[in-house]
Amino acid sequence: MIRISFAELKSTIKQAFLRAGMPEDRAETCAQIHTETTCDGVNSHGINRVERFIEYIHSGLVDVHASPKLAFALGAMEIYDGQLGPGILNALFAMDRATVLAAQHGLAMVALRNTTHWMRGGTYGWLAADKGFIGICWTNTESCMPPWGSRSEAVGNNPFVMAVPRKEGHLVLDMAMSQFSYGKVWSCRDKNIKLPFPGGFDHEGNLTDDAAAISETRRILPMGYWKGSGFAIMLDVIGALVSNGLATAGIDKANKGSAGSSSQVFIAIDPEKMNTREFIEQTLESTIAQLKAAVPVKEGGQMFYPGEQSLNTRKQNLQNGIPVDEPVWNKIKELAAQ
Amino acid sequence: MIRISFAELKSTIKQAFLRAGMPEDRAETCAQIHTETTCDGVNSHGINRVERFIEYIHSGLVDVHASPKLAFALGAMEIYDGQLGPGILNALFAMDRATVLAAQHGLAMVALRNTTHWMRGGTYGWLAADKGFIGICWTNTESCMPPWGSRSEAVGNNPFVMAVPRKEGHLVLDMAMSQFSYGKVWSCRDKNIKLPFPGGFDHEGNLTDDAAAISETRRILPMGYWKGSGFAIMLDVIGALVSNGLATAGIDKANKGSAGSSSQVFIAIDPEKMNTREFIEQTLESTIAQLKAAVPVKEGGQMFYPGEQSLNTRKQNLQNGIPVDEPVWNKIKELAAQ
Repeated sequence: MIRISFAELKSTIKQAFLRAGMPEDRAETCAQIHTETTCDGVNSHGINRVERFIEYIHSGLVDVHASPKLAFALGAMEIYDGQLGPGILNALFAMDRATVLAAQHGLAMVALRNTTHWMRGGTYGWLAADKGFIGICWTNTESCMPPWGSRSEAVGNNPFVMAVPRKEGHLVLDMAMSQFSYGKVWSCRDKNIKLPFPGGFDHEGNLTDDAAAISETRRILPMGYWKGSGFAIMLDVIGALVSNGLATAGIDKANKGSAGSSSQVFIAIDPEKMNTREFIEQTLESTIAQLKAAVPVKEGGQMFYPGEQSLNTRKQNLQNGIPVDEPVWNKIKELAAQ
Repeated sequence: MIRISFAELKSTIKQAFLRAGMPEDRAETCAQIHTETTCDGVNSHGINRVERFIEYIHSGLVDVHASPKLAFALGAMEIYDGQLGPGILNALFAMDRATVLAAQHGLAMVALRNTTHWMRGGTYGWLAADKGFIGICWTNTESCMPPWGSRSEAVGNNPFVMAVPRKEGHLVLDMAMSQFSYGKVWSCRDKNIKLPFPGGFDHEGNLTDDAAAISETRRILPMGYWKGSGFAIMLDVIGALVSNGLATAGIDKANKGSAGSSSQVFIAIDPEKMNTREFIEQTLESTIAQLKAAVPVKEGGQMFYPGEQSLNTRKQNLQNGIPVDEPVWNKIKELAAQ
């Protein structure tokens, strides 16, 4: 691990995107998001995805020039065809558009089909919250998780995001339907340590925290056992239906890389349409106060509201530099110099 | 366990509700829902709640005459004050109203504040799906689960429901944010058997499937560890904000019994606004086909779509009679005869 400043990380990633043929303004936005994500400590969906994203551009899986195209509009609902453009740009557009419609209607839903990997889902929750809106969004993916009762991959891990605006720090939940990502499982395996909690099944079919065993069986655990498995199926089909796009079974057949041709949903709600600012703040502060006043398991332990730890990490990394894996950083520099 | 016919169960529950002072049409509807819930195998939220519901009527925690009162309306969004009326009637009204608004706008949200226990959340998902709508709904509750990192109850278990209409059987997910209900934990403890999977913590702070230990610590597990804890918080505050109602911290203070003065959200989407029937069926059938084609863990094992097992149970119980605990059944008969 080495530490890189936000400015240096962003300019290097941007340079790599420019070299890959992205227009200036698009490279700027995508570099900003990849850097913010890394700054929040989510390297897996920030700097660590830059190389693959560039590969996808070169192999034609992502069209750097494509933009969302309106396919359907009815009042507070719109559907866009993402035309396999950069997933970040498509998703930023869609959530922003949802907030514009919600400012008018109170509640709005923008669905996006035929898009590509949005990287970190939380990005779009923060976008909505920064603009003062409650945001709910999700994406489907290709098959990467065995449904409950199975040992072969047949459902996506379909990340789901909820965000609520708050002056002192938004509440943002960003969770995949798998308990742990493969990135986490592989990282624990490589370090020869156990997962913090059981996260999959071994060859004997026992629930285990043994990362090496789970890497072998590929039986990663849906969060909440059968619950995350069922939730993944619902997010998948609802996402496909409201976008008139592909469900996981169709994405698997399309075979366009990680999350290529996926379907996404962006819901925005304007909480100030039915509430005063005062009521909103009071509701959030009393909830957080109750959370913080609970008895910690370990003396001195803390309970965090969703999004709080990202915020803490962000502050620290802006001050001390953003920790990145040195080989990954060297690869980005190489891509930027080519 | 004894088996009772649907008709006998319903008429006896209805009689008990009438004896408690419920008007005829309201007793009819509530008895129907309690019986359907029991018929689907969810006794915990059907027949097993009848006695407590009647206690709540007698103690004034539920007003059998109250109806939802419009508090706010803006296009496809409405808020109702449930006025502590029967939770089932309030929630049926709210989801039905959401479908009426969605038929017009495509997408609609009805929020309900100051309501009482809605019993089984899945009821309202099935209602939406029966009418051809995608339904999403949730409720908050009083504190009944320790947030992640804590050993004292400070968040609700906030059941969350998603439903998609399908000719051959709707897809309906109905899940609480706790991995197991206290009902399940106590039932395993009393039978001296382990939970099927780890579902809480023992006195040493270890994750365990020991139901007796979890009953003692009351450290039930949020589904997906920290994920269910964070999800519960988001459902809670969003529910309170869009209904202009109470969050869990406020419900705890109100102290109006289980889920008394809770806040609920009902979202309906008309999938035929942007899709053909054919596309909808094709999306659902290909998803279910992929699920069914996955490799089962155990030879001959099956993977089920959300709601499928309820449907199977319903069919069996309609044929063979509905299994109920004999002491519970005797109590209902007693309440009906009083």
